[in-house]
Amino acid sequence: MGTPDGVTTSRDFPIPDRMKAWVLDGPGEVRLTHKPVPVPQRAEVLLRIDAVAICPSDIDNIWYGWPAIVDGEKPFHKEWTPGHEYMGTVVALGPAVDEFAIGDRVAVEIHAGCGQCRRCRAGLYTSCLNYGNRAKGHRANGFTTDGGFCEYQVNHVNTMAKLSDDISDELGTLVVTAGTAMYALTEIGGLIAGESLVVIGEGPIGLFVAAVGKALGASPVVVTGLSPQRLAIARGLGADHVIDVRDRDAVAAVKEIVGPHGADYVVECSGAPVAIGQAVAMASRGGRVCLAAFPAEATQVDVGRLVRDNIALFGIRGEGKRAVHRACALLRDKKFDPGPLHTHTFALDDLPAALRTAKDKLDGAIKVVVKARGVAARQAAAE
Amino acid sequence: MGTPDGVTTSRDFPIPDRMKAWVLDGPGEVRLTHKPVPVPQRAEVLLRIDAVAICPSDIDNIWYGWPAIVDGEKPFHKEWTPGHEYMGTVVALGPAVDEFAIGDRVAVEIHAGCGQCRRCRAGLYTSCLNYGNRAKGHRANGFTTDGGFCEYQVNHVNTMAKLSDDISDELGTLVVTAGTAMYALTEIGGLIAGESLVVIGEGPIGLFVAAVGKALGASPVVVTGLSPQRLAIARGLGADHVIDVRDRDAVAAVKEIVGPHGADYVVECSGAPVAIGQAVAMASRGGRVCLAAFPAEATQVDVGRLVRDNIALFGIRGEGKRAVHRACALLRDKKFDPGPLHTHTFALDDLPAALRTAKDKLDGAIKVVVKARGVAARQAAAE
Amino acid sequence: MGTPDGVTTSRDFPIPDRMKAWVLDGPGEVRLTHKPVPVPQRAEVLLRIDAVAICPSDIDNIWYGWPAIVDGEKPFHKEWTPGHEYMGTVVALGPAVDEFAIGDRVAVEIHAGCGQCRRCRAGLYTSCLNYGNRAKGHRANGFTTDGGFCEYQVNHVNTMAKLSDDISDELGTLVVTAGTAMYALTEIGGLIAGESLVVIGEGPIGLFVAAVGKALGASPVVVTGLSPQRLAIARGLGADHVIDVRDRDAVAAVKEIVGPHGADYVVECSGAPVAIGQAVAMASRGGRVCLAAFPAEATQVDVGRLVRDNIALFGIRGEGKRAVHRACALLRDKKFDPGPLHTHTFALDDLPAALRTAKDKLDGAIKVVVKARGVAARQAAAE
Amino acid sequence: MGTPDGVTTSRDFPIPDRMKAWVLDGPGEVRLTHKPVPVPQRAEVLLRIDAVAICPSDIDNIWYGWPAIVDGEKPFHKEWTPGHEYMGTVVALGPAVDEFAIGDRVAVEIHAGCGQCRRCRAGLYTSCLNYGNRAKGHRANGFTTDGGFCEYQVNHVNTMAKLSDDISDELGTLVVTAGTAMYALTEIGGLIAGESLVVIGEGPIGLFVAAVGKALGASPVVVTGLSPQRLAIARGLGADHVIDVRDRDAVAAVKEIVGPHGADYVVECSGAPVAIGQAVAMASRGGRVCLAAFPAEATQVDVGRLVRDNIALFGIRGEGKRAVHRACALLRDKKFDPGPLHTHTFALDDLPAALRTAKDKLDGAIKVVVKARGVAARQAAAE
Repeated sequence: MGTPDGVTTSRDFPIPDRMKAWVLDGPGEVRLTHKPVPVPQRAEVLLRIDAVAICPSDIDNIWYGWPAIVDGEKPFHKEWTPGHEYMGTVVALGPAVDEFAIGDRVAVEIHAGCGQCRRCRAGLYTSCLNYGNRAKGHRANGFTTDGGFCEYQVNHVNTMAKLSDDISDELGTLVVTAGTAMYALTEIGGLIAGESLVVIGEGPIGLFVAAVGKALGASPVVVTGLSPQRLAIARGLGADHVIDVRDRDAVAAVKEIVGPHGADYVVECSGAPVAIGQAVAMASRGGRVCLAAFPAEATQVDVGRLVRDNIALFGIRGEGKRAVHRACALLRDKKFDPGPLHTHTFALDDLPAALRTAKDKLDGAIKVVVKARGVAARQAAAE
Repeated sequence: MGTPDGVTTSRDFPIPDRMKAWVLDGPGEVRLTHKPVPVPQRAEVLLRIDAVAICPSDIDNIWYGWPAIVDGEKPFHKEWTPGHEYMGTVVALGPAVDEFAIGDRVAVEIHAGCGQCRRCRAGLYTSCLNYGNRAKGHRANGFTTDGGFCEYQVNHVNTMAKLSDDISDELGTLVVTAGTAMYALTEIGGLIAGESLVVIGEGPIGLFVAAVGKALGASPVVVTGLSPQRLAIARGLGADHVIDVRDRDAVAAVKEIVGPHGADYVVECSGAPVAIGQAVAMASRGGRVCLAAFPAEATQVDVGRLVRDNIALFGIRGEGKRAVHRACALLRDKKFDPGPLHTHTFALDDLPAALRTAKDKLDGAIKVVVKARGVAARQAAAE
Repeated sequence: MGTPDGVTTSRDFPIPDRMKAWVLDGPGEVRLTHKPVPVPQRAEVLLRIDAVAICPSDIDNIWYGWPAIVDGEKPFHKEWTPGHEYMGTVVALGPAVDEFAIGDRVAVEIHAGCGQCRRCRAGLYTSCLNYGNRAKGHRANGFTTDGGFCEYQVNHVNTMAKLSDDISDELGTLVVTAGTAMYALTEIGGLIAGESLVVIGEGPIGLFVAAVGKALGASPVVVTGLSPQRLAIARGLGADHVIDVRDRDAVAAVKEIVGPHGADYVVECSGAPVAIGQAVAMASRGGRVCLAAFPAEATQVDVGRLVRDNIALFGIRGEGKRAVHRACALLRDKKFDPGPLHTHTFALDDLPAALRTAKDKLDGAIKVVVKARGVAARQAAAE
Repeated sequence: MGTPDGVTTSRDFPIPDRMKAWVLDGPGEVRLTHKPVPVPQRAEVLLRIDAVAICPSDIDNIWYGWPAIVDGEKPFHKEWTPGHEYMGTVVALGPAVDEFAIGDRVAVEIHAGCGQCRRCRAGLYTSCLNYGNRAKGHRANGFTTDGGFCEYQVNHVNTMAKLSDDISDELGTLVVTAGTAMYALTEIGGLIAGESLVVIGEGPIGLFVAAVGKALGASPVVVTGLSPQRLAIARGLGADHVIDVRDRDAVAAVKEIVGPHGADYVVECSGAPVAIGQAVAMASRGGRVCLAAFPAEATQVDVGRLVRDNIALFGIRGEGKRAVHRACALLRDKKFDPGPLHTHTFALDDLPAALRTAKDKLDGAIKVVVKARGVAARQAAAE
């Protein structure tokens, strides 16, 4: 990319002018092309992307163009590069950056707030009132900006956390999900060690909420779901109890475990309409219900129960308050092993196969990772 | 009542053995009878009831037996005395009481928690897990115990706050509603001076939320409603703007005032199903929606918006964390004048007429007060 | 100043290339000179300074070079312009600024955090870990940057709050002090309406703490001090009680008013060593002591009392979490009248006389204001 | 004890009328005598005491009569039974108790608040304003009431937490200390996973703060102390770094580890005057310092640093907000192994030898436990 004014590079990491990048042509249609390598501005770095995981919201973005884009605009304009759960290596520093050094391995957060609105100034940058306004400095990596299904990407220093050497590239991509779980439980939810925690839904976010909740002292931790394979993983991540809701009434089964008053804290991670009602029903008087997923349509809620029993219901989008840094601390300290969540690895050239595997949960897929280097692109030809 | 062991009385306030008391025979059917004057136990006092206001939830209790009673039991057993918004004079002290003296004028809160469950021990006694369990010490005055439509009642010291002399008996009955408003705004809602506040619904609770919000520095304070008369009272209580929603789209009108991002804080006080949706729609990213009323049925909620925009939705029942004491401080300091909220006074003997006036909002009724003494029972004969 | 790229100006507010500015030559020695008018960068505006108040910390800066400057460096290098309590009119906008328009009257906060450290990202920008590091974006106006004793100054949009038209220029300079009081009481201190508040010290910050505390519902509000004139002003601002500590033991007098358990909340604003001890002694079990001023030397503290009685002691520097915006809301709503705090006005050319008046509290001086225009420089000749 | 009205007993646990109990005759002088077995009242149970640990505050109580007793009264009246870190088996239930069953093994908290003052009603029962007032219901077990150096004791249900079967009696006595650590870190201190934590002092409370802090995700956890043996135990409990302050400057050594800005959170557990200053010096801007121990005398504190750098300094007494329950959850989940903290066991009859071992830290003593049964009273004869 040359070396623009104020940008620091190193001969250890030569940077090309152009790079491979996938773009979105239409619903479900991605195309491999080339783009210029972007240049880091003030408070930004350039990352060489070493691995990217596929998040359910990537699937939503790519197939439905929703809900990522501001003001109803769809992202099918043949230029946008999706992907937001990536990690990589710092290869260039923008002006005045000393928080990171060239060669650092980092995981990324999604949101850089504008830093100027009343939410950002209170620390709530995932609720930035200038969401999507890049002139004001807001970035949601891989949502309102180009993302990680390519070889290089710029990131604001606020959206990066150092990875310790013993975390692999593949597991490094999962840190942002762990950060979202942490934010939901502590900063926003006020989880206190020793409280009971129920997680509805055994997708990646649900599994991480269970793992992080257990690591932070929630007790007991109960996970409800439909997949025996994933519920077994939930046990391995620390869940004290799992409930297969194909067999049993979820609310009754939870109350058998946590007692008739219900749970202190419920995190709904399935997005199923029926689950919203279950979540409210299984919360105790004075309990809290966090929604980490949501149905496409408006949903019936027993608001009378919220009022009569002083229950709080709140949504969580993204990771806030440096939660990804804290999640890195948990992983560094080996509080739990996210290994079983990572099930597949594809070459960057094989992104379409990777997306299909993630979308259709083929072959027991939970977290599917894409890598630009070190993985043979065996399936690309088959596309 | 004689003077049982450990109870302190005074010759200034002689106490009879029996008293007038209204009881509930069936839906909407109250009957005047006599009951023994109750005896204060440890940490309780006996109050001579000087005034009682009629709350919309009294109407619900009396006509529908709902939602006051534990475990679905209806209160139509011909023995229960309703009424919970009362004030009075301390006339006897139970054992070990020194928080109050005989002769003190006091307002009352509704809830005395058990003091033993995990909610009470965290200060959340309105969410007591032993709700309705009197053996454990829980009391919800006028809900799970006999209430105030009579001449005397016992109260736990935790449910009383001293009134200053310049607050009339009639206005003293309104303190518990002011306390609920305060709890909704500060302890539970975390309102910060300078934030925007929208109140949906111009009933007594809505009007008090507006008044207390303004007194605590919310800015601007906007009230939406249907009654020009009551919206004018809202202005007098400090609302900066009022919106007659018969003329205008509530969400659009609010955003014109507070800006396109929406309001920091919305308190829904109408209980109308449509208002739940409006409340969510007019909250800003990272905003909060407090529900102080609720529809009888489950209601459609745009939970996607809660998640995407990090909005918290929470119910409030009652007054918590000594909010009634704090409301007394606001009234003592004359932060606002609740006078216009009090529209009617009836003699205790005229309770049926008073209830009908409140229920049907006859003659511009907002707060209807009943007094055992000092008001001629002119209408009783007409019943 | 010409019109650099990306900067917006208006012919209504022509901007010269150079301006009058006072600089600090040595302890207590200020000199009037000329400087170029600064140019606003991204997220900054240029203000025409209409009025500046003199803060006790300006006196400390000018006479002792302390504690404003980073890393022990003294500010006596003949180039620095002090002054931080200013207000003015927006006359130019830096690139991408739309939060303010040319012609807006604004008050200023002191601190713009770096927006990148862990404190800023949690909303605690007055505790920015990059304090004094301008390359990272930190600014403390009039401390680590040039301040307001001149005709024009740039300000980050995060350090400005709009003034309503009915607040005079002179009173507009006081908003930042009101903002500090608000931050101390609510965000940092968690003051709840109805709690008792004691203010030690009747200087400008103490008086504002009393006024803001009362406006927010503290009850009772007690002010202790040495000056009958200022204690009378405290009464006018809303204090329920004032105590002249020349006559009485402060701790005993406070307990007579708030009760033997002591006060819920104490704000120490005098900086006297003896007052630290009094503040701890008059706080109740579980109470909080905020230090808004401090002695030059380490001070004896009864830490045993802090531990035995669960008392929190915390410092407050500056205004944080947009408190100046909230203070503007209180002033706009006329919650109290800061008028009596403003005692003197001088022309900008008369800064030395103004400083002496403030430093020596001549002629009953509380807040001394300096204005570049509209005040005849009558005293300058007399210097 | 017979079976008083309303008390439930079981033939599985026959209860004698009288029991062995140690009483305090004078400073350091304990005497073995007999007392009636106490009778549980409403909301109380009778415990058979199975094990008691000796706390440093027991030593203070027994040798100095300080600071346990209310209003300066010394406890040397030959009737008081000290001891507060006990666990046991429920053998009788007072009226209306259903939270526990006969046969339950439980650990105890110290504080039962009055439930009526403004602190208790906010959940802050360790700051109860009626401290020491038994008529109001306040109890501080083994401080203001008879404690655990005997065979049976009554306890309020609020002061008990069930122990899982795999926690030994000896380790069960340590739960209350773990609860204090938890309260200091989370409820009062707001520790967030991923923050840096420094513990000054490697006594029992310091070691537990390190273990609990690590379990809750603090990172890194640093312990400073003087004893290589105990610092090694700190490592085993999860501390990432230990610093022997006989060799090194504590502040400099901490900053080498956590970075030049200092630590997010410091807990001072040594009570040494010099440590107070170190704690303030090693906290970061915006950091927090918790004092869990304290010197006998008032101490020099750099209050200027508290103010300039927005640092909070707060004391912690006891365990609050059900922290002992939460600590039990951590132990049940085996988040750390407190085993190495328990170094000695004595028979109840050997209390004087046990006290001397604990007081003089003989033979590497950390936690010395006394048991009424199952330990041969070999040393008693040697007394």
